[in-house]
Amino acid sequence: MGMVGGGKGAFIGAVHRMAAALDGEIELVCGAFSSNAERSKQTGDDLYLASDRVYDSYDEMFEEEAKLPLGERMDFVSIVTPNFLHFDPAKKALDKGFGVVLDKPMTLDLAEAKELNRTVEETGQLFALTHTYTGYPMVKQARAMVAEGTIGNIRKIYVEYPQGWLSTKLEDTGNKQADWRTDPAKSGLGGALGDIGTHAANLSEFVTGLEISELAANVNIVVPGRKLDDDVDVLIRYNNGASGTLSASQVLAGSENGVKIVFYGEKGGIEWKHRDPNSVILRLPGKPEQELRAGVEIEYLAPIAIKHCRTPSGHPEGFLEAFANIYRNFAMTLRAKLDNTSIDTDYSDFPSAGDGVRGMAFIEKVIESSKNGGKWTPFVI
Amino acid sequence: MGMVGGGKGAFIGAVHRMAAALDGEIELVCGAFSSNAERSKQTGDDLYLASDRVYDSYDEMFEEEAKLPLGERMDFVSIVTPNFLHFDPAKKALDKGFGVVLDKPMTLDLAEAKELNRTVEETGQLFALTHTYTGYPMVKQARAMVAEGTIGNIRKIYVEYPQGWLSTKLEDTGNKQADWRTDPAKSGLGGALGDIGTHAANLSEFVTGLEISELAANVNIVVPGRKLDDDVDVLIRYNNGASGTLSASQVLAGSENGVKIVFYGEKGGIEWKHRDPNSVILRLPGKPEQELRAGVEIEYLAPIAIKHCRTPSGHPEGFLEAFANIYRNFAMTLRAKLDNTSIDTDYSDFPSAGDGVRGMAFIEKVIESSKNGGKWTPFVI
Amino acid sequence: MGMVGGGKGAFIGAVHRMAAALDGEIELVCGAFSSNAERSKQTGDDLYLASDRVYDSYDEMFEEEAKLPLGERMDFVSIVTPNFLHFDPAKKALDKGFGVVLDKPMTLDLAEAKELNRTVEETGQLFALTHTYTGYPMVKQARAMVAEGTIGNIRKIYVEYPQGWLSTKLEDTGNKQADWRTDPAKSGLGGALGDIGTHAANLSEFVTGLEISELAANVNIVVPGRKLDDDVDVLIRYNNGASGTLSASQVLAGSENGVKIVFYGEKGGIEWKHRDPNSVILRLPGKPEQELRAGVEIEYLAPIAIKHCRTPSGHPEGFLEAFANIYRNFAMTLRAKLDNTSIDTDYSDFPSAGDGVRGMAFIEKVIESSKNGGKWTPFVI
Amino acid sequence: MGMVGGGKGAFIGAVHRMAAALDGEIELVCGAFSSNAERSKQTGDDLYLASDRVYDSYDEMFEEEAKLPLGERMDFVSIVTPNFLHFDPAKKALDKGFGVVLDKPMTLDLAEAKELNRTVEETGQLFALTHTYTGYPMVKQARAMVAEGTIGNIRKIYVEYPQGWLSTKLEDTGNKQADWRTDPAKSGLGGALGDIGTHAANLSEFVTGLEISELAANVNIVVPGRKLDDDVDVLIRYNNGASGTLSASQVLAGSENGVKIVFYGEKGGIEWKHRDPNSVILRLPGKPEQELRAGVEIEYLAPIAIKHCRTPSGHPEGFLEAFANIYRNFAMTLRAKLDNTSIDTDYSDFPSAGDGVRGMAFIEKVIESSKNGGKWTPFVI
Repeated sequence: MGMVGGGKGAFIGAVHRMAAALDGEIELVCGAFSSNAERSKQTGDDLYLASDRVYDSYDEMFEEEAKLPLGERMDFVSIVTPNFLHFDPAKKALDKGFGVVLDKPMTLDLAEAKELNRTVEETGQLFALTHTYTGYPMVKQARAMVAEGTIGNIRKIYVEYPQGWLSTKLEDTGNKQADWRTDPAKSGLGGALGDIGTHAANLSEFVTGLEISELAANVNIVVPGRKLDDDVDVLIRYNNGASGTLSASQVLAGSENGVKIVFYGEKGGIEWKHRDPNSVILRLPGKPEQELRAGVEIEYLAPIAIKHCRTPSGHPEGFLEAFANIYRNFAMTLRAKLDNTSIDTDYSDFPSAGDGVRGMAFIEKVIESSKNGGKWTPFVI
Repeated sequence: MGMVGGGKGAFIGAVHRMAAALDGEIELVCGAFSSNAERSKQTGDDLYLASDRVYDSYDEMFEEEAKLPLGERMDFVSIVTPNFLHFDPAKKALDKGFGVVLDKPMTLDLAEAKELNRTVEETGQLFALTHTYTGYPMVKQARAMVAEGTIGNIRKIYVEYPQGWLSTKLEDTGNKQADWRTDPAKSGLGGALGDIGTHAANLSEFVTGLEISELAANVNIVVPGRKLDDDVDVLIRYNNGASGTLSASQVLAGSENGVKIVFYGEKGGIEWKHRDPNSVILRLPGKPEQELRAGVEIEYLAPIAIKHCRTPSGHPEGFLEAFANIYRNFAMTLRAKLDNTSIDTDYSDFPSAGDGVRGMAFIEKVIESSKNGGKWTPFVI
Repeated sequence: MGMVGGGKGAFIGAVHRMAAALDGEIELVCGAFSSNAERSKQTGDDLYLASDRVYDSYDEMFEEEAKLPLGERMDFVSIVTPNFLHFDPAKKALDKGFGVVLDKPMTLDLAEAKELNRTVEETGQLFALTHTYTGYPMVKQARAMVAEGTIGNIRKIYVEYPQGWLSTKLEDTGNKQADWRTDPAKSGLGGALGDIGTHAANLSEFVTGLEISELAANVNIVVPGRKLDDDVDVLIRYNNGASGTLSASQVLAGSENGVKIVFYGEKGGIEWKHRDPNSVILRLPGKPEQELRAGVEIEYLAPIAIKHCRTPSGHPEGFLEAFANIYRNFAMTLRAKLDNTSIDTDYSDFPSAGDGVRGMAFIEKVIESSKNGGKWTPFVI
Repeated sequence: MGMVGGGKGAFIGAVHRMAAALDGEIELVCGAFSSNAERSKQTGDDLYLASDRVYDSYDEMFEEEAKLPLGERMDFVSIVTPNFLHFDPAKKALDKGFGVVLDKPMTLDLAEAKELNRTVEETGQLFALTHTYTGYPMVKQARAMVAEGTIGNIRKIYVEYPQGWLSTKLEDTGNKQADWRTDPAKSGLGGALGDIGTHAANLSEFVTGLEISELAANVNIVVPGRKLDDDVDVLIRYNNGASGTLSASQVLAGSENGVKIVFYGEKGGIEWKHRDPNSVILRLPGKPEQELRAGVEIEYLAPIAIKHCRTPSGHPEGFLEAFANIYRNFAMTLRAKLDNTSIDTDYSDFPSAGDGVRGMAFIEKVIESSKNGGKWTPFVI
């Protein structure tokens, strides 16, 4: 694979590289790591890349890589730049015939997301969006239990995504991560909403198999002077009549990164939290609470959950492994496509461009509702 | 003390009696335990009461007890009947010169609550409402930390109260508890809202010292055919500008009774949950998470928290002890009043008639907002 | 009931009184609260006792109370003095025809314990030893599951009892609790061993239904200058061939009071810990871990566990309720004895004089083994 | 790197490969994956290795690789075979001038371990033993806190390593992992003792900086007919006078893999458990319990802990990352050695051949003590 972005000091670039490397299925062969050519070169050196495959720009990379024969050139590109630099490289890569793994949220706005989605469909290239949480085995387990009817028709969904790192005006201190995330020109319409709210919304839809149909929101800028929202609460109705709440905030001083979903159907409830990602809790009336555990040997798990574990129960797996599941599935699916073979569809499970469009629509609808005094707003795209 | 309600089979009556008995400060001397005279008598016998002080009705009890000399007659009455039977006995007891401990929610509607509050003020009698959660030492600790400024000005409050016992139409099976709670004539305007939503609202105001100023709600009847709400989500704004959510539901199949509050200020966050009531979690940026623990010997606790513990750290206290704290404080305050002495105000800490009025107003405002499509509705009484 | 000991400032006396009061089945009617007559009187006043039933000595109390008619005199006595003052009042009370509730460990040494046990048998009086942990509903649940064969023949038992309060030489600071517990003349052969080690040993035998048959021990005095052990580790073999460890320590600086037992049979394992006393964990191979929860309405619990709960699931009960279960059962059994009626044997479940003898033997055998270089020592009485 | 062992179906081989790949610092270039040449070749293909670098035997591999120029040939070899196949390939690799990463326990017996250790010293080659748990950032944090004196002189150490997978006679069912681990010819003197007991002993010494000086053990074969121990309890004295227990068992039916250490010094206690590896608990008398959390941005952590994190707090890292820390450190140290540069010694932190010798001695001493009726046995090598 090649990489766009992820130069020295960028957090998420290194995460993508580790995730891609873990299973030995993907080799980083080239990159345009920074808009600064010197910086890009330095990063390439640090990563032991051949210097002729470290490019000054992604345009150059796509151009040059496309000239290489299949098998030698990069098969796909991983794009790990800030939001405002998602659409252009992604569209160009697709148009040049490369698969794309793209960091979330998908684009700067909904229009871009829709166009990118169309490009994916038109080019037939493989595309994945890194909604990491869907990569966790026990999140897939939760989804599988819902699909099997373990808890019946879903009635209630609570999802929360707390963070605390923006509880002060960190963007004024030169912090690079904070800087672009709080800048509408680089981040888009949503602040916390785009950065973590979309994860929460995606998680709720992924796990339950439902779709948000309507929402009423309260979007806040808590830290004075900030230009984008840093806190949001949303009341939600889903397409089967279920209701719930979604809260995402980056100003919860002292809170570490965390995401949690708890939901209930007619026959029981399920809970998963990032704090303890190798467990999923199942509650059934009249029975003891059950804690299902990740592990390659755990026979009571759904097959799709087992296939996304790497170790036996009691060997904690985490964020990088979940991230790696997206990459591994993408690689397996891409290989099958290139080889014209078929694969177990459990291994084709990764977030799509369609998920990305829904994420961008979520941002827009939440802001629309909040601006209209928290009015219930249909979630139509 | 005397008791109104709490005949055989009533859950909360026995709780009140154990809570009152625990500290050896209160003696149950009389009761009108049921509208059924035979049943009342039987309960009195089971409780080893003198038969001449087991009454057929509360009217009779107030009449007869008032004739007895001070010191011999009951000093106050504990009223543990369903909501529709709160106002009348409470008002009559106050008017007859008795103190009152009343189960929540205060009355059937806001008008009654206001009138009862006026009666409390006019008669000068002592009155307590059993919002039990405020009786926990670590809830008082949380409140004390807020008051000391430990986490700075509060920005965000999440409070949730899940239950699962009404996830089916239990009221159709002859279940007495379910029956009156789902009957508007006996329960009032609110179902889950009154039963547990008021606890959650009271807890959020008690702990933070803030007042709800505005709310936008989604009130649901999830179980088909039910006559009162069994599920509610509320977006809230507080009088200092903080925002948050409140969720209360009785249809979360498989969930046990639980209440939890997490809130954050400019300088940190605090969490307390009923599942682990002897701990309170303190989160301060840049420091390890701290778990404060209840215990009579724990010097880092606020004095008010220590005064509401009975045992050293590592000896779990629970629901009955929290309940007993309300009773003990009521008894100590009443004794001081009768003896015309003063007491440490930490021991006068119990929920008031004013809290009860706010609870009833909360029910009305939430329903009003939900009926108006979730419109933001000022919380004015 | 009457009480011996438990004057002002004594921790455990107040605990006994609250435990006895909770269920409304027991009334404190008299006491010899202190060897200091003035102090005894003051305590009696604080407890609202009639002054003529507050005695200068337990000898006087037994004498005078025995003169009162049945029904008026105390039915039994609760003895809450330090260990060296257990045997004499207990034996005298039994001989005078009173039932006895006695704090643990039973006596100052094994010989006394055996004699007291004989007295219980000879007088036919009712006797209970307050090994509190056996009063917890979920401890009884664990025992019931073992008895039902849920985990098969037991193979392994780990029990631990950590405390930290004696991690410095507290006995030199005038601390009354520390003073007598570290004084061989008042505490007996064992320090931590008697105070908490006997709880741990009793718990392991109670829950598993097994008996310790052999042990090898390492008994330590960790704090320099202390006269009695403050830390002990024991390797244990049980009478069915199971093995395990028992650790008890009072020098674990920073540790709160806690006791925990984890044990495994051929078919699964069970865990209970005081830190979360309303849960018991069940582990069965090939199944999710199950968390059973206390609650009067929890139908999957054993009947005996339900009968020792007071509230529904999600209303935490704790140490005082467990303690109260011993008192309530003692009272119910005593009443049945006095009334010559029979009762559900689940309500006769409380620790016996036989348990007390085993506890004293445990102390002696552990010390014997440690003195013999940790030699395996048969546990024969 | 090259690999010896780790053919298809071998659990630990894949773990080593993922751990080595994660950070992009190590490339697998060759292997002798199985004693079965066909199987070795197949594994090499699956791993995308050049076919001329997949060898039929490790002898051949060392021979051929040694002929290649530095930079092209493997720099070190990872040996992931069963215990009986540790010594020979490790010694040969060292003698041929290759660094060695070796799975634990080090060898089949103590004599081999000592000889291998001498070979490491004589050849001057780099050597690491994969005691994985020492790779966890929060284990290093615990060690750092001890070294800084946070809890004072250590008094008490409890370490436990429970597993349940051998609670039945799995070795009779054709299970490959169970087969060699329960076979003295392949596993050595110790069963559970070697497989997990050595991890526990190593962890206790690593974290506390102490050395075991004396032990008294109870070694059991619980499952009838098994040839090696599957359960062991040990009383331990350390070289500073501290005491403690170590329990390791593979017959705890229903228990997942888990390891936990809790230890106390004069001024406080520390707890780390594999179940929640990104936390370490600090207990100080008179202060709330503190939960320190892993994360690259957590400034209160010791520098060495931060250097072994890859993500911010709230992004769980796990077993593979801990394993990868050993590989990354080995690679960095090897590179510095090859480049003749120096590195931050925090990055040279990985288990040594000396640790391996202690592990083998631990096995022998525990068995010796148990055979001598649990006699206290000096831990001298």
